[in-house]
Amino acid sequence: MSTGLHYFFEPNGIAVYGASTNPQKAGHQIVKNIIDSGYQGRVAPVSVGGEEVLGLPGYRDLPSIEHRIELVVLSAPAKATPQFVEQLEQRFNSTRDIGAIICAAAGFAEIGTDEGKRYQDMLTDFCSRNGVRLLGPNCVGTVDINMHLNATFIADITHVPGGISFVSQSGAVGAWLLMSWSATPGGGVGFNKFMSVGNMADVDIIEGLEYAGNDERTRVLGLYIEGSPDARKLVHTLGSIAEKKPVVILKVGRTEEGAKAAASHTGSLAGTDALYDGAFKQFGIVRTDTIEELSDTMRAFDTMPLPEDNRVFIYTQAGGPGIFCVDEMASSGSFSTAYISDESKAQLKEVLPPIASVCEPEGHADITAAATAQQHIDGLEVLLRDPEVDAVFFITVATLFLDLEEMARGMSELLERLEREEGIRKPVFPVIISGNYVWASRRILEENRIPTFASPDRAVKVLDNMIRYSRYRNERGDKQ
Amino acid sequence: MSTGLHYFFEPNGIAVYGASTNPQKAGHQIVKNIIDSGYQGRVAPVSVGGEEVLGLPGYRDLPSIEHRIELVVLSAPAKATPQFVEQLEQRFNSTRDIGAIICAAAGFAEIGTDEGKRYQDMLTDFCSRNGVRLLGPNCVGTVDINMHLNATFIADITHVPGGISFVSQSGAVGAWLLMSWSATPGGGVGFNKFMSVGNMADVDIIEGLEYAGNDERTRVLGLYIEGSPDARKLVHTLGSIAEKKPVVILKVGRTEEGAKAAASHTGSLAGTDALYDGAFKQFGIVRTDTIEELSDTMRAFDTMPLPEDNRVFIYTQAGGPGIFCVDEMASSGSFSTAYISDESKAQLKEVLPPIASVCEPEGHADITAAATAQQHIDGLEVLLRDPEVDAVFFITVATLFLDLEEMARGMSELLERLEREEGIRKPVFPVIISGNYVWASRRILEENRIPTFASPDRAVKVLDNMIRYSRYRNERGDKQ
Repeated sequence: MSTGLHYFFEPNGIAVYGASTNPQKAGHQIVKNIIDSGYQGRVAPVSVGGEEVLGLPGYRDLPSIEHRIELVVLSAPAKATPQFVEQLEQRFNSTRDIGAIICAAAGFAEIGTDEGKRYQDMLTDFCSRNGVRLLGPNCVGTVDINMHLNATFIADITHVPGGISFVSQSGAVGAWLLMSWSATPGGGVGFNKFMSVGNMADVDIIEGLEYAGNDERTRVLGLYIEGSPDARKLVHTLGSIAEKKPVVILKVGRTEEGAKAAASHTGSLAGTDALYDGAFKQFGIVRTDTIEELSDTMRAFDTMPLPEDNRVFIYTQAGGPGIFCVDEMASSGSFSTAYISDESKAQLKEVLPPIASVCEPEGHADITAAATAQQHIDGLEVLLRDPEVDAVFFITVATLFLDLEEMARGMSELLERLEREEGIRKPVFPVIISGNYVWASRRILEENRIPTFASPDRAVKVLDNMIRYSRYRNERGDKQ
Repeated sequence: MSTGLHYFFEPNGIAVYGASTNPQKAGHQIVKNIIDSGYQGRVAPVSVGGEEVLGLPGYRDLPSIEHRIELVVLSAPAKATPQFVEQLEQRFNSTRDIGAIICAAAGFAEIGTDEGKRYQDMLTDFCSRNGVRLLGPNCVGTVDINMHLNATFIADITHVPGGISFVSQSGAVGAWLLMSWSATPGGGVGFNKFMSVGNMADVDIIEGLEYAGNDERTRVLGLYIEGSPDARKLVHTLGSIAEKKPVVILKVGRTEEGAKAAASHTGSLAGTDALYDGAFKQFGIVRTDTIEELSDTMRAFDTMPLPEDNRVFIYTQAGGPGIFCVDEMASSGSFSTAYISDESKAQLKEVLPPIASVCEPEGHADITAAATAQQHIDGLEVLLRDPEVDAVFFITVATLFLDLEEMARGMSELLERLEREEGIRKPVFPVIISGNYVWASRRILEENRIPTFASPDRAVKVLDNMIRYSRYRNERGDKQ
């Protein structure tokens, strides 16, 4: 299984067929992305005129490229397929170096015409006869942050190495996720591999998931899916990965109308969503409802410790946002109250402002706007040391007299120190409210690999997902 | 009713009692915010030492201020209340100019001590004897963007005049909302009045809502509430405003746990949420679940036309995000399909790329990544001209070869031209995906008062709210 998929992520030499000097063309932007991502191998732009593209010497055809090319990205119109395949055949008569083709062009089987199907068949026929792997057609390509490769035409991918890998049945949804990370306070999210599978003429989503999921650099596997012709195999593949690392999914076609639209889009039979949903639960696969929740959850799994259990403390500097958080938690049903000890309560009262409200109700402290940055951190330390606390929602609302950056540095230091000196590792969800003013403090935390949240509802969804996965792993007795 | 509330928003002269030269103190930042907001009247900082604050001559007490002061902001510790009231009495012996007091300090009835209650009673006693209105204690103050007044200690309020007014039972939630607007692509959201009611020792939330809601500059009234001692009156007040303009609410205490926490916070009886919820529906009050939805909905009501009915067209440049949108819409249940005419379909096919999928299924076009900026706009014009279309979700995902700024300018011009030349006004929801890369195009739209959305789910929630309000107004036959 999965033979040859490494050519999509760590090829020795790339040709871009349909390269262009025109920045309005995908064939230009793919070359640009490959260069900008810092790819270390040789890149050959191929076009009818053989023009130089972005300083790279151009070629008129594939056979004339004198260096090794293991990956070809096809960005020419579908009607150029016959010439493309002819050039592949020619090259293979002398040099059998190509291991994989990304077909980033559209206009193949997905548009439903006989012509489109015929072009797709020409590609798959060549590939299957020659043991070449084909991604797409109608996909946006692949990314491997650790290999410095961005072989897509996505506009704005941040290059921060990390443990998230993502496989998508929609190129646009992949772009959506990856581009959204530029707007996080840290200016990026740690990432490993991305694959957009498009029409799945050869490499299908299951094979892509197996490859990305079993990659040792992948700490959390995410996917967007509309449907699979082999739902059973899909779920079992995901399930076997979820035994080792979290799998986070966004599946559309939840509704009848959505399933109909999905069938029209990728031609995939969406199947009964309820069956998928049940299987996801059974196999410990975390299902999310929005791209935001998907992204937040993957980030948390990559960077935060799993909660031991579901006993949560709400530690808030502001009443209203704290109550809002209580409502969100109660609606989810996954949480229970962290009943801290009398000793912890006394310590909290000692370090917090006199007007702070401690454990009224239980599992909740309102430290009030009178709390200084240091008081925020001192109280958090009391909570993290209490063995009854599995996780903390840490909510603070900016005032002009609270030093948020001092608080962010203090929290980073505290979490690092507790882990280093005492092995205490618990998830803390900093909800720092709100807007541009709090950006600098959130950036400090995110640069220390502590995700921050714009609102309690987002943090609650993430911890809910983490608790469910943690319980799945605990119940299976294979807890790390 | 509502006598004297204008002193909170357009006072002739302000004193800040408890002013400070120390930027870490609220009494400093209130003075700073008043200055920074461009307040046109005189401002007198009052402190024990009588120091100059931020270039303003200081005073040792209220009686020694020689100019008129209609509003006093109290920012001294609660224990300073006896001296404060004594100074009020002294000033009233000669000059009865003060019309209102904002008590921005905490440590009064809300902390539950006898001392706190006594201080609060001293304030209310003075105010009721002298016809002075009291806001708070334990509130963050008031804002009036049109009067250039920010009498709060909120860190970062943008000053963009507009039609939204907001009344909050939690100062922190008010700050959350107002600060979040700095992070919108337009760099701010059009705003009118804000009031934080705190302990409601005198001015309660109902009176605040009546005042802000009936303000002629208010086009949409928003509120955050935990509960009211007079739920019936609250709901009727909101209902009578909702007959004229949209009222958008975030109410916590949805759950039993949340209600308990709310009771502990403001001491308010949260009441049975289901009763509130039914009354909101009955009176056309739009209830939202998150600050994000509250904010998005208020912005849309302020700037977009109400939809005629619920026939919606999904116009997407990318398959996956379009299907995601279908799921969100189907889950809501508020929408129906816009069945455009055969003529419109033919026109769409003419202006869109050949591989575009038009009305398969009905009410849905996938214009594909091949669509240029101009094609985006030409197709949108066809839809807006079709009488079967009440609203459009316009979804596009950035590629490096699509000129998003040209598209944004094109959309702004199209909407303006259709309204000016033909009186066509329909809500269009631009979902421009995603991250920093699309910021410039979103900014162009927002500067033209067209709200943009980061994801389809957010746009769907807003249109859902607009449709429900539009139907409420239509059913009452008082449609504008």
